[in-house]
Amino acid sequence: MTVMTAADLQDFLAREFPQVSELNLRIEEARDRYVRVRMPFDDRHLRPGGTVSGPAMMTVADCSVYLAILATLGGVAQAVTTNLNANFLSRPEPKDIVAEARIIKLGRRLAFGEVDIFSDGVTEPVAHVTATYAIPGGGRADA
Amino acid sequence: MTVMTAADLQDFLAREFPQVSELNLRIEEARDRYVRVRMPFDDRHLRPGGTVSGPAMMTVADCSVYLAILATLGGVAQAVTTNLNANFLSRPEPKDIVAEARIIKLGRRLAFGEVDIFSDGVTEPVAHVTATYAIPGGGRADA
Amino acid sequence: MTVMTAADLQDFLAREFPQVSELNLRIEEARDRYVRVRMPFDDRHLRPGGTVSGPAMMTVADCSVYLAILATLGGVAQAVTTNLNANFLSRPEPKDIVAEARIIKLGRRLAFGEVDIFSDGVTEPVAHVTATYAIPGGGRADA
Amino acid sequence: MTVMTAADLQDFLAREFPQVSELNLRIEEARDRYVRVRMPFDDRHLRPGGTVSGPAMMTVADCSVYLAILATLGGVAQAVTTNLNANFLSRPEPKDIVAEARIIKLGRRLAFGEVDIFSDGVTEPVAHVTATYAIPGGGRADA
Repeated sequence: MTVMTAADLQDFLAREFPQVSELNLRIEEARDRYVRVRMPFDDRHLRPGGTVSGPAMMTVADCSVYLAILATLGGVAQAVTTNLNANFLSRPEPKDIVAEARIIKLGRRLAFGEVDIFSDGVTEPVAHVTATYAIPGGGRADA
Repeated sequence: MTVMTAADLQDFLAREFPQVSELNLRIEEARDRYVRVRMPFDDRHLRPGGTVSGPAMMTVADCSVYLAILATLGGVAQAVTTNLNANFLSRPEPKDIVAEARIIKLGRRLAFGEVDIFSDGVTEPVAHVTATYAIPGGGRADA
Repeated sequence: MTVMTAADLQDFLAREFPQVSELNLRIEEARDRYVRVRMPFDDRHLRPGGTVSGPAMMTVADCSVYLAILATLGGVAQAVTTNLNANFLSRPEPKDIVAEARIIKLGRRLAFGEVDIFSDGVTEPVAHVTATYAIPGGGRADA
Repeated sequence: MTVMTAADLQDFLAREFPQVSELNLRIEEARDRYVRVRMPFDDRHLRPGGTVSGPAMMTVADCSVYLAILATLGGVAQAVTTNLNANFLSRPEPKDIVAEARIIKLGRRLAFGEVDIFSDGVTEPVAHVTATYAIPGGGRADA
């Protein structure tokens, strides 16, 4: 059951996460345990050398896992990240970033997901992120 | 040997990392293998609930380890993060964030550091980060 | 190109990794960038409560990524783990452990892989591991 | 308040963790939020090249954080590891391994610690580990 659609999540992001509004994230797809999010290319996220910065990619990854939890459970807005592990694999090209987040485990109190991060149109990922969220009020009743 | 001072690093940050200028980071102390960096409290880094966001803390941590490498080796500006692991321990208070970064290992090709992140004036850390940097041109000759 | 088969890897493991011989690992499948490894159930890997221990699972994961590198590159026996991040998701059942390792990035000097770890016959993974290996002599010429 | 001494922990380890008995771990010091554990050198933990294996070091690290929790809280035997992140910094020498574990955060439901791992008598650590434990029955009442 998908309880928030891509459009719902786009509204939610604008309303509840004004601090990432400058990243101009676009939620391209949302379904049970999955979202795909695009971060348009923008010079402001660059590091020396013309590459997208690690912190910008970690921000997208953190948001994406959160949005995938919402796509699955609905508006449990108070989930908080407890661990995030990022591996930077290749220098991103000066292109849009596309993040694909999948929820691997959705328990009563913890959700765990992974994110593959791509330079738009490039097959090999530029980064891989795992993240754990605590769900204070409880997640799935059956988990 | 400290080859870049706190003032040097502050200049470097402004010049080479315009993408973090809005965080308004203040380098309070820099010495061999160590820096302390302050991120002034700013509503824009907040998450719902009035707490400093995880991505803002990861950005400070990533910068801090990089600056501690520079404080030790000088301007090896092309070091790149290969791994960052963040554990979020407590909800930060609506206060300045203070990050203390220490380099644990400085080899020829890799540097590894850890960062304790505090809400200003609070004893227990709110987050703990480890980060690995690749140093493409080589680091210490003796490592 | 798969340069070591499952049988090759089984021989290699017995010869080069006597320290894991007691885990009695069985390499069930090996192909380009992928291996599946079974650890038969054995009371000696148990923790209080009848569950397979975390260290036993991390050992299988570490070996599995290494074997997947060998399945792809051949006998580069000196690859060394530089980072391993394990998330323990559910209590394993008192059953065989099955680890599926995939190489996500295979560069000239670094390989990065992830491992899904299952209790035999159970759909949801009990653990998820990512691991980075340094390849001292160099990996793929084209990466 | 230290509620289990080094001798208490040594007994506990023998009784509750028979699966690590072959590592012959020696608890050298235990106090509030801290333990130091020695793993005597033993050829069986070696990898090709005469170095102590990563899994042996991760096993010591995982045990050490658990023992440091017990040294602080007493016999909450059911704490379970939820995340372990290991960074391997240098090739260990063929010597005893000494692990120093510190608890950084001890909350009601989660404990977080870090471990510096040394080759005996060598100043620079060979590995650094962070680990999170869930404490099902609850930890500190005041945390």
